[in-house]
Amino acid sequence: MSTGTRDVRVCFVGDSFVAGVGDPSGLGWVGRVVAASAARGLPLTAYNLGVRRQTSVEVAARLPVEVPPRLAAAGEPRVVLSFGVNDTVMEDGAPRVDPGATVEALHAAVRAVAPVPVLLVGPPAVVDPAQDARVRHLTAALRSVCAETGVPFVDAHAATAAAHRWHREVVAGDGAHPGADGYALLADAVAGPILDWLGAPVSDVGAAGTPAAAP
Amino acid sequence: MSTGTRDVRVCFVGDSFVAGVGDPSGLGWVGRVVAASAARGLPLTAYNLGVRRQTSVEVAARLPVEVPPRLAAAGEPRVVLSFGVNDTVMEDGAPRVDPGATVEALHAAVRAVAPVPVLLVGPPAVVDPAQDARVRHLTAALRSVCAETGVPFVDAHAATAAAHRWHREVVAGDGAHPGADGYALLADAVAGPILDWLGAPVSDVGAAGTPAAAP
Repeated sequence: MSTGTRDVRVCFVGDSFVAGVGDPSGLGWVGRVVAASAARGLPLTAYNLGVRRQTSVEVAARLPVEVPPRLAAAGEPRVVLSFGVNDTVMEDGAPRVDPGATVEALHAAVRAVAPVPVLLVGPPAVVDPAQDARVRHLTAALRSVCAETGVPFVDAHAATAAAHRWHREVVAGDGAHPGADGYALLADAVAGPILDWLGAPVSDVGAAGTPAAAP
Repeated sequence: MSTGTRDVRVCFVGDSFVAGVGDPSGLGWVGRVVAASAARGLPLTAYNLGVRRQTSVEVAARLPVEVPPRLAAAGEPRVVLSFGVNDTVMEDGAPRVDPGATVEALHAAVRAVAPVPVLLVGPPAVVDPAQDARVRHLTAALRSVCAETGVPFVDAHAATAAAHRWHREVVAGDGAHPGADGYALLADAVAGPILDWLGAPVSDVGAAGTPAAAP
């Protein structure tokens, strides 16, 4: 295995989907993106900072504490954020975090790690139709803000909402998280944009002889 | 997939070996332990808190900040610590952390997360003979202190020192970290003791019908 000459370190910061809760393979979507990057010739140092139940506000509050010790020495430090589903959970008749406050949390998160480049992966689809509508609207708001501020945005809702595999595994699991197949679906949708953003070699062909790793 | 009724959340806190640096599969030994636990019928919520270059002292200092937000809501909170190789690196004629200070850091770490149960995975073997001797002596010291204080100890040095696969991959890699095969070797050595400690069902047979996941 060639370790190459680049030193790319990525903090993936977010919620239980980032942590890979429910995936019996131990990979989640983050592990699969790391494997895909190595297969394309760009090994990463990956730090998974997903925490269950956390909203965008809680994620943003952790960034200044948890990211600097991991990225201070990096040749190419990067942050991938992903949150939103927990924001849309209703508590006492209101969402845990209002869409406007989610957008504010995104701004705060980007400021907290500046000048480290940030990419946002939006929230995936959920089973409950009313909550899923809120996730869809939040996705639209986040995409719009990202376009305005120059933060690359990857739409996880579009990738999962119409996928029977996703919903089937969520229902068969704990009602919120998919299993290995659902995480593979999500990883397939987000890996390309993330690896392009990281500047991974374009394909297996010419990838410095790095053998294909796990799928 | 059955999610069972237990809510076991484990923080794996340590250095680059915990983070899985150099493993193109994206699993590292921690991901493989998580997969093995799911295969034995005990799905975990796993938080990987390995950070490159960190010594025992730096790991212990992070615990009070990073562990509580992840384990506060856990039905069964657990912490797996692993450090030591970076302590034995020579800087200006002395190891980065003296063995006595490593032992102190272990005590501090256990106190920091009490009453959450802690298990310690010792440092794996390194290529340089002089440093490896220091790792071996540190392993003996940590084993002794763990026996005295009732902290379960898993010897990663014994599992890797005589393994050609381990040394071959480290040399072929960045000189410090193995690839997928070395991490699989380490995972095979530590998974049993860790899963027994977590109270995972003893074998696939009778594991509540949970199908085998990734190996």
